[in-house]
Amino acid sequence: MATTLNDSQYDIRDITLALEGQKRIHWAALDMPVLRQIRDRFVKERPLEGVRISACLHVTTETANLMLTLKDGGADVVLCASNPLSTQDDVAAALVTEDIPVHAVKGEDNDRYYRHIVAAIQHKPHITMDDGADVVSTLHQEYGDLLPGVVGGTEETTTGVIRLRNMAGSGRLAYPVIAVNDARTKHFFDNRYGTGQSTLDGITRATNLLWAGSRVVVCGYGWCGRGVASRAQGMGSHVIVTEVDPITAIEAVMDGFEVMPLIEAAPIADVFITVTGNRDVVDRQHFAAMKNGAIMANSGHFDVEINVHALREMATHVTEVRPMVQECLMPDGRKLYLLAEGRLVNLAAAEGHPASVMDMSFANQALCATHLIKHQGTLTRQVHAVPTVIDEEIGRLKLQAMGVNIDTLTEAQIAYLASWESGT
Amino acid sequence: MATTLNDSQYDIRDITLALEGQKRIHWAALDMPVLRQIRDRFVKERPLEGVRISACLHVTTETANLMLTLKDGGADVVLCASNPLSTQDDVAAALVTEDIPVHAVKGEDNDRYYRHIVAAIQHKPHITMDDGADVVSTLHQEYGDLLPGVVGGTEETTTGVIRLRNMAGSGRLAYPVIAVNDARTKHFFDNRYGTGQSTLDGITRATNLLWAGSRVVVCGYGWCGRGVASRAQGMGSHVIVTEVDPITAIEAVMDGFEVMPLIEAAPIADVFITVTGNRDVVDRQHFAAMKNGAIMANSGHFDVEINVHALREMATHVTEVRPMVQECLMPDGRKLYLLAEGRLVNLAAAEGHPASVMDMSFANQALCATHLIKHQGTLTRQVHAVPTVIDEEIGRLKLQAMGVNIDTLTEAQIAYLASWESGT
Amino acid sequence: MATTLNDSQYDIRDITLALEGQKRIHWAALDMPVLRQIRDRFVKERPLEGVRISACLHVTTETANLMLTLKDGGADVVLCASNPLSTQDDVAAALVTEDIPVHAVKGEDNDRYYRHIVAAIQHKPHITMDDGADVVSTLHQEYGDLLPGVVGGTEETTTGVIRLRNMAGSGRLAYPVIAVNDARTKHFFDNRYGTGQSTLDGITRATNLLWAGSRVVVCGYGWCGRGVASRAQGMGSHVIVTEVDPITAIEAVMDGFEVMPLIEAAPIADVFITVTGNRDVVDRQHFAAMKNGAIMANSGHFDVEINVHALREMATHVTEVRPMVQECLMPDGRKLYLLAEGRLVNLAAAEGHPASVMDMSFANQALCATHLIKHQGTLTRQVHAVPTVIDEEIGRLKLQAMGVNIDTLTEAQIAYLASWESGT
Amino acid sequence: MATTLNDSQYDIRDITLALEGQKRIHWAALDMPVLRQIRDRFVKERPLEGVRISACLHVTTETANLMLTLKDGGADVVLCASNPLSTQDDVAAALVTEDIPVHAVKGEDNDRYYRHIVAAIQHKPHITMDDGADVVSTLHQEYGDLLPGVVGGTEETTTGVIRLRNMAGSGRLAYPVIAVNDARTKHFFDNRYGTGQSTLDGITRATNLLWAGSRVVVCGYGWCGRGVASRAQGMGSHVIVTEVDPITAIEAVMDGFEVMPLIEAAPIADVFITVTGNRDVVDRQHFAAMKNGAIMANSGHFDVEINVHALREMATHVTEVRPMVQECLMPDGRKLYLLAEGRLVNLAAAEGHPASVMDMSFANQALCATHLIKHQGTLTRQVHAVPTVIDEEIGRLKLQAMGVNIDTLTEAQIAYLASWESGT
Repeated sequence: MATTLNDSQYDIRDITLALEGQKRIHWAALDMPVLRQIRDRFVKERPLEGVRISACLHVTTETANLMLTLKDGGADVVLCASNPLSTQDDVAAALVTEDIPVHAVKGEDNDRYYRHIVAAIQHKPHITMDDGADVVSTLHQEYGDLLPGVVGGTEETTTGVIRLRNMAGSGRLAYPVIAVNDARTKHFFDNRYGTGQSTLDGITRATNLLWAGSRVVVCGYGWCGRGVASRAQGMGSHVIVTEVDPITAIEAVMDGFEVMPLIEAAPIADVFITVTGNRDVVDRQHFAAMKNGAIMANSGHFDVEINVHALREMATHVTEVRPMVQECLMPDGRKLYLLAEGRLVNLAAAEGHPASVMDMSFANQALCATHLIKHQGTLTRQVHAVPTVIDEEIGRLKLQAMGVNIDTLTEAQIAYLASWESGT
Repeated sequence: MATTLNDSQYDIRDITLALEGQKRIHWAALDMPVLRQIRDRFVKERPLEGVRISACLHVTTETANLMLTLKDGGADVVLCASNPLSTQDDVAAALVTEDIPVHAVKGEDNDRYYRHIVAAIQHKPHITMDDGADVVSTLHQEYGDLLPGVVGGTEETTTGVIRLRNMAGSGRLAYPVIAVNDARTKHFFDNRYGTGQSTLDGITRATNLLWAGSRVVVCGYGWCGRGVASRAQGMGSHVIVTEVDPITAIEAVMDGFEVMPLIEAAPIADVFITVTGNRDVVDRQHFAAMKNGAIMANSGHFDVEINVHALREMATHVTEVRPMVQECLMPDGRKLYLLAEGRLVNLAAAEGHPASVMDMSFANQALCATHLIKHQGTLTRQVHAVPTVIDEEIGRLKLQAMGVNIDTLTEAQIAYLASWESGT
Repeated sequence: MATTLNDSQYDIRDITLALEGQKRIHWAALDMPVLRQIRDRFVKERPLEGVRISACLHVTTETANLMLTLKDGGADVVLCASNPLSTQDDVAAALVTEDIPVHAVKGEDNDRYYRHIVAAIQHKPHITMDDGADVVSTLHQEYGDLLPGVVGGTEETTTGVIRLRNMAGSGRLAYPVIAVNDARTKHFFDNRYGTGQSTLDGITRATNLLWAGSRVVVCGYGWCGRGVASRAQGMGSHVIVTEVDPITAIEAVMDGFEVMPLIEAAPIADVFITVTGNRDVVDRQHFAAMKNGAIMANSGHFDVEINVHALREMATHVTEVRPMVQECLMPDGRKLYLLAEGRLVNLAAAEGHPASVMDMSFANQALCATHLIKHQGTLTRQVHAVPTVIDEEIGRLKLQAMGVNIDTLTEAQIAYLASWESGT
Repeated sequence: MATTLNDSQYDIRDITLALEGQKRIHWAALDMPVLRQIRDRFVKERPLEGVRISACLHVTTETANLMLTLKDGGADVVLCASNPLSTQDDVAAALVTEDIPVHAVKGEDNDRYYRHIVAAIQHKPHITMDDGADVVSTLHQEYGDLLPGVVGGTEETTTGVIRLRNMAGSGRLAYPVIAVNDARTKHFFDNRYGTGQSTLDGITRATNLLWAGSRVVVCGYGWCGRGVASRAQGMGSHVIVTEVDPITAIEAVMDGFEVMPLIEAAPIADVFITVTGNRDVVDRQHFAAMKNGAIMANSGHFDVEINVHALREMATHVTEVRPMVQECLMPDGRKLYLLAEGRLVNLAAAEGHPASVMDMSFANQALCATHLIKHQGTLTRQVHAVPTVIDEEIGRLKLQAMGVNIDTLTEAQIAYLASWESGT
């Protein structure tokens, strides 16, 4: 497996996995036609020539296709993992053979994880490309001297966008960041259909449980939660939703789900899935109330949603009984099962979102990177929306690639929508 | 049936229907607990004392409960129909016996419809309460002298809000209007679950068709369209969506629906339902392509979505074969069926939205009226959002009335959501 | 409204309703293409020439089309109601103007109901055509002298088939009866999609309740119960199933529904629907436990499923608050609502099953009548299945009429299905 | 890894995999409470003492639990694979360390597969336990001398039951076989929820495709097909069903699916799944018509449903592009993807059915084995139904284990169901 990079430029599991990774990257590319078109244009136009990009993303086959696109656009890219358990080691290897430095090893500990973040930061990025805002946060807290060199950043997730808004709100954000997450072509699809499917997939692979007839608690009814609840219902589960927002809770009820406080759901549910973006959502009192055999999984960005620390403290014994399944023996003899150590189960126990949805998400990433470069110096140090023109262009290309035709407004209809005079 | 009003103060079908109307108004009240609480408070606080309100709404049992609430708040209310076919004559009669002037007769022609609008306007309103913006539009176009007396208005529907935004955009809006439609507690529920259910209900009552196995085209995948598509699927129909927005179209595809141009759906579908807010969505070319027996219904605000005029021109013969069902014999022998003359089928052929969703919508109306009075003179001549505090208060009250409890954020969780420093 | 019958030959509400009935019968005919083809053939072949048929069926537009078909086949038909509340008076009138004697008045009391049954029996039928087995039962118990003249019978419902099997089992059945209910083209469709849709329709018309978010208990998970549960879920309800059969209960759980004893569901549900075919399913202890505002409806054949007698005894006051809605004031102040007096709500409060499903059910009736005549004297005094050839022929014709094409087996495939030798 | 067996007694991949297999078998046992109770009883009662059983089943964790149960019941068990691709090598190893001879290697060729069948036959079984009838078929065709020693057999699948009925029908079946497949506690659950979930799981693992918005063709709408169609719809796919039976086809239409001949679906679908039990369902003309990128998978018992032989002939090149995914390059440049070589994708690419459904299926197997022994010599050489008492007992135990309570009939209700006299 050849690479022009030397050993010190990357940190991965095993470069001999590259061939398997290449095959899978190619397979994913088949379902990423929008990114493909952007890549084809990038090859010709080189809009990112010489731009240093530090990407901190889940190292998956879809991310690999984004990296290759950025590289073909002229960028000088470094990639580090955005989660200790989400890396696909064969993909990491394959990217290294494409001469893209990767710092990511599945199952790395926290120290190594942060060494990888730092490696990406030391690339002195013009653009940061984050999934969860760990690079932007570390950069601001520890590498302030590099901030002036940064043109801008992009952020992939709801969680990251919340962190960034908090930074901007307190005047701490030092450069403009585009909230890729908030694009219609991103969160409507990636967060809903992507998370919905891949979360169930991760839990199925980890446990091979029967969804039909299971009682599944979904904590959080945001875009991700809706996706998960909808898919679990589609698999025949009886879904219970927990929420903290009253209006959202009414939506969940009217969508046909049961809604109750988690402490009431704890003793009756078989599976608990967190997608809240908040910490300690499943906590001591819930562990204490769960029934024997309960399964817990998180699909939110950080591993704080299930209080794993408390669970381990409460348990008298913790054993891995299947890959990604830890059995926690409670003092009263109950056995609770924690999947993927409370990290995002869809990436840790399965392959993450299907390429077809990541196609739109990463098309936004690629085009927002060029937007940042093009508008360098003109954007405020705030969290910015994805430009509508980019969002809509991606929608059009995707629909076309799907082979779906739709209606177009006539002149008379456009005029009607702009009018107010004529009524009943 | 007693009323203190004299004959010239109202125009309704038949006052002897009042008893039936009263019963049904009372029945609806059982499912409107939030409005009930507001009404109880209004009785004590009289926040609308002496305020003249001209309401142009569908004359249903739910609207009647809103009228009684406003009256109990001290308001001097007049009600006219917001659609020629949506009036429930027994409700109109019942309100008159409550001394509320009503101008509304089911099946009234356009002249009478506008005489009723004018009657409402001549009430010299401080507040206009619109459903489709016919009062605000007529007032601006023909009764400009009354504009200075208007404190503000509220608008119930998507269609009306679009008209008002166009007015405001062209600098023509003479007073502030609150877009009740856009409240979370309104459009998430009323437009989706309300329209979804009541549209199918109207079509079922008009036709008694079997939904299972029918091919149903839903034109428009906005909030109303989603509701209709979801309910039709829930009844076993094969649903085809038509759209003009690419991103919305992809959503429809990923929600499992077929998406295609209407002209392609025309020859294969059994039922066509319009919920677009636009005109001539179903037009000559579609009528020409439809199969024998096709059924058309509109659930959008105005009767312009199906080009009824063109349909009648093309037909060699039009007969009413069941109440609310017109058979249009086409020159080639095909028979097409138009429901409710292309007017909103859920109100013309059924009772409109269930009280339980209107509870939230009309709670918004009542509280926005008091907001307009309280903030008289301070609001710009724009379309305003429903104040968040009103929206959320309604959500809380509704959830409580539904007997549903939810979780609340801990201090630590609130702090976490406001932070950005801690990461993986 | 002309008829050759004299007054003593029929008993209906009002013959002047005939025109409205005719229109609606014609409308239903549009969705009954299979029966149409049979009728066309009957006109030519007259297979029932001179056969006296006593039909006891719900007097609906679909039944009317069956009566006209039998008449066109040469039969001498009399029709009486199979339920006191299911008669459509305009349809009864229309049939009389077609010279078919009808004995049926919506809302008739039990005495009149049985006078009507007796009128049908006194027609001295060659064939009885039952829906619930009231004619066959009365005939056996009170008119034994007429039994020798009966060639055979048909039975439309699950309930009736159970009664007949009990009769046959105890050696009491005096002539062969075909269980139309058990045909694949009948119970798969009529009982599931028909009852599912029409039951919700009846409840919606009676109450205009919001299904989304309601807790709906479906008592019984047979074919009818599955239909009701599926449709309620499709409308956004949270569905709870009660059952007495363990295996069926597991199915309900794995279909995603909650399953529990009715007494546990009583205090938490908003709506109770019975489709069990058994008596006193909802009884005193349940009424005592229900929450204020609970709604009860039955869609099973007889009005015994909800113990209406006990409910009225327990209530301190019963009032009709809307058509088909009785408010029962309980001693503790709770108000419980009984729809359609506990009779089948889909026929009492709505129009019954859509014509499209009744098309297949009644095609079975028509063809089974000819089968009985053709095989007169050769069938045992048992409950017989619908001949497969009839069942499949109806399936083929229906599919064709729906415009749906399917695959056909190749010779090689037919051979393969008949073999056993070749394996992996 | 210790075993008392010698090398010649088994043929597996690698005995060092045993530990992993043991863990997974233990994990599956947690979701098999009914089998657990049977096993506990078997330990005490030893109902199969000395009975030689030749089992030909998919070598999965659930099967392992059945084998251990039989062994604990006193049986002398040998297990061979019922499909060349369904073996879990770690499970095979684990069983060998439990001293159960296993003949099964994932990916074995046809010769080795049949050597394994023969090894099982040479065990001289008193009971054959088949999944697809390969043992019973080979035994009858090639080892007729052993037939007199066989007490009886059981059969797990629809396909096997069809083969056996054909054998019995032609007078060739030499001993009684119980059709475990036809038990209510088997085919209602295993074939529907099991196959539904595991088929999608297999395809997801093989491809990571996005189900939402995909067009999925399900060939065959039997119990398995219903499960697959329902789950695909639940994941957001647009499902097209193909059928050969008209009545079943109408059901599919009324369940909301599109139904059409496969040749019409071929050019528009993304995924094709066969569950028909027939051969060459997807054949040359379909391959020729499919669009580029089409994916094909089989979930029927044998690999004959997709004409793999023809596909390979038509392709100019076949490459494995991901594990279990073969890319077939067609002469016109289209690429078609065949999963798991056309063998049952749920077992080849995923873990097969969840333990929770297999619990009931294999409880039937265990109890039917004891039934065969108990009634030795009294059963005819036919295909027999699972005794109702066994079926219902399993249902009761399962429901109990699920923690679900249900209602029970009162005396009055039992009497009512047995009566016929009282009517309306």
